[in-house]
Amino acid sequence: MVTKRTLLPVFALGFVLTSASLAIAQTVDPLSSWNDGKAKQSIIEFVAKVTTKGAPDFVPPAERIAVFDNDGTLWPEQPMYFQLFFALDLVKALAPKHPEWKDKEPFASLLTGDVKAALAGGEHAILEIVMATHAGMTAAEFEKTVKDWIATAKHPTAKRPYTEMVYQPMLEVLAYLRANDFKTFIVSGGGIEFMRPWTGTTYGIPPEEVIGSSIKTKFEMHDGKPVLVRLPKLNFINDKGGKPVAINQHIGRRPIAAFGNSDGDLQMLQWTTAGQGQRFALYLHHTDGDREWAYDRNSSIGRLDKGLDEARVKGWTVVDMKQDWKFIYPHEAR
Amino acid sequence: MVTKRTLLPVFALGFVLTSASLAIAQTVDPLSSWNDGKAKQSIIEFVAKVTTKGAPDFVPPAERIAVFDNDGTLWPEQPMYFQLFFALDLVKALAPKHPEWKDKEPFASLLTGDVKAALAGGEHAILEIVMATHAGMTAAEFEKTVKDWIATAKHPTAKRPYTEMVYQPMLEVLAYLRANDFKTFIVSGGGIEFMRPWTGTTYGIPPEEVIGSSIKTKFEMHDGKPVLVRLPKLNFINDKGGKPVAINQHIGRRPIAAFGNSDGDLQMLQWTTAGQGQRFALYLHHTDGDREWAYDRNSSIGRLDKGLDEARVKGWTVVDMKQDWKFIYPHEAR
Repeated sequence: MVTKRTLLPVFALGFVLTSASLAIAQTVDPLSSWNDGKAKQSIIEFVAKVTTKGAPDFVPPAERIAVFDNDGTLWPEQPMYFQLFFALDLVKALAPKHPEWKDKEPFASLLTGDVKAALAGGEHAILEIVMATHAGMTAAEFEKTVKDWIATAKHPTAKRPYTEMVYQPMLEVLAYLRANDFKTFIVSGGGIEFMRPWTGTTYGIPPEEVIGSSIKTKFEMHDGKPVLVRLPKLNFINDKGGKPVAINQHIGRRPIAAFGNSDGDLQMLQWTTAGQGQRFALYLHHTDGDREWAYDRNSSIGRLDKGLDEARVKGWTVVDMKQDWKFIYPHEAR
Repeated sequence: MVTKRTLLPVFALGFVLTSASLAIAQTVDPLSSWNDGKAKQSIIEFVAKVTTKGAPDFVPPAERIAVFDNDGTLWPEQPMYFQLFFALDLVKALAPKHPEWKDKEPFASLLTGDVKAALAGGEHAILEIVMATHAGMTAAEFEKTVKDWIATAKHPTAKRPYTEMVYQPMLEVLAYLRANDFKTFIVSGGGIEFMRPWTGTTYGIPPEEVIGSSIKTKFEMHDGKPVLVRLPKLNFINDKGGKPVAINQHIGRRPIAAFGNSDGDLQMLQWTTAGQGQRFALYLHHTDGDREWAYDRNSSIGRLDKGLDEARVKGWTVVDMKQDWKFIYPHEAR
């Protein structure tokens, strides 16, 4: 107890320093990678409304929940979901242990380098690839595999590590919201255990604030040591109507702000904005074919069609990435 | 932005005051409802070890995760689970809308007041009662039902509101851990949506830090408004091996401290203590038949048998409620 008592004044000092640094940080533009315009303005105005004490729209810090899709919202999803690159790399790595894959689709095509043919089987083919690479090991083993991959793999055309391809303007939004006492959750269709190993260092989001799709796991004793074994069985698909379901299950309260980029996020934005008081919904519109990728209504990945219409009807913020963003990636902003 | 800037010094002042209050609070005993002894000492020593900067067992605040069972660990579970009293009260309230229940077990017996006969059907009967009372409405409607019940219902023998029957010594442990930068999660076999409406005010635990059993929910549009409908279908049973599974799914990291009272918590304690570095596991042993209830190896509710043996082998803390606790309930400590 003595130790605790002597440490506390030091903690108190830490609080003051932190708050002082924040005060200084706030005098510079917290969204400096955003061009001035309606989108940037809408974010700043929303935050001011819900954080101004005594104002009619004030929201207590505990209720300042913001949810973010990941693929296409915090990092790209082209030419295909990054997690699928991870799975394909794993298929290659695991192939020596699976001689039967040489004659079995979708693995056979994958191993000859014909990704298109492999994925021609659609969702079923993807599910086979995911189960073959994401199940059958312990949670700890899978975590290590993800960490090793994310530390070394590079995007096929951008030739950069995937964690360097996160959107700088969105990193600023995350930091800005957290500086204003928001909790920032990821609510992604991607695998929850695929994201958690790197969201802390990349986005500043701890594992308990990551929600995603999952496979079932089982508690077992291996040589007297408890382990969680990953089973080749779907547990939850965190997409479309699944997003509000997962938000309710995991967070247990309705967010006041939601950020997405596709029709898969529409129900999350509807659920968020249907609550009482000030609510904020934002769609990223991928309009920059030069610096990133341009796609919307007809894309098979990250289609934004119904969502774009509803955003216009309801007055949600729609970010034109080409117009609204000074920079896309962190290295451009340095 | 101006508002934000002018507010920040006030926040900074708030931090100083809070820390100062903490420093004062620490000079009084944070576990004052605990008698001096091995159990109390073990809690204090563990917290000192993991919070002393520079010490070999120091754990960064972000990793200070503590998990607590609820029934029998934070509040009683006798003569039966409190959530079952809630369900039985709902059966009575809903009976006029279900004339068919008069001839259908387990409802028929319940409505004549014969709880024992109703529950003779075991798990199947309980499941029928839960589904009839916990499903078929929206999440918001169910939340209101829970809030109304918890505000008015009283325990059949203690004649007190259930939220006044929480264990004062455990409230002190929760507060003590949080004052030392722990996050305190509930990991209960009880219904997640049954607990969340009152865990904030009763335990200081926000909804996003409550994990429990659940039924499936579905996102729907009712008259253009998004709702989550509760379905009569089990989603997850958060008991035994399910507890580590849910901890991994919800928190995504291994706790460093776990508190339980039954064999249903054993896997959670095993999972927690199997991690590296300092770990803490505690079992409440219900030994006080006068002030609370006395039961262990042969109880159908909250059986503590294998867990008691393993606690002794592994040196986990076992709380003898009769010996170790000065008070059981908050009203005794006032």
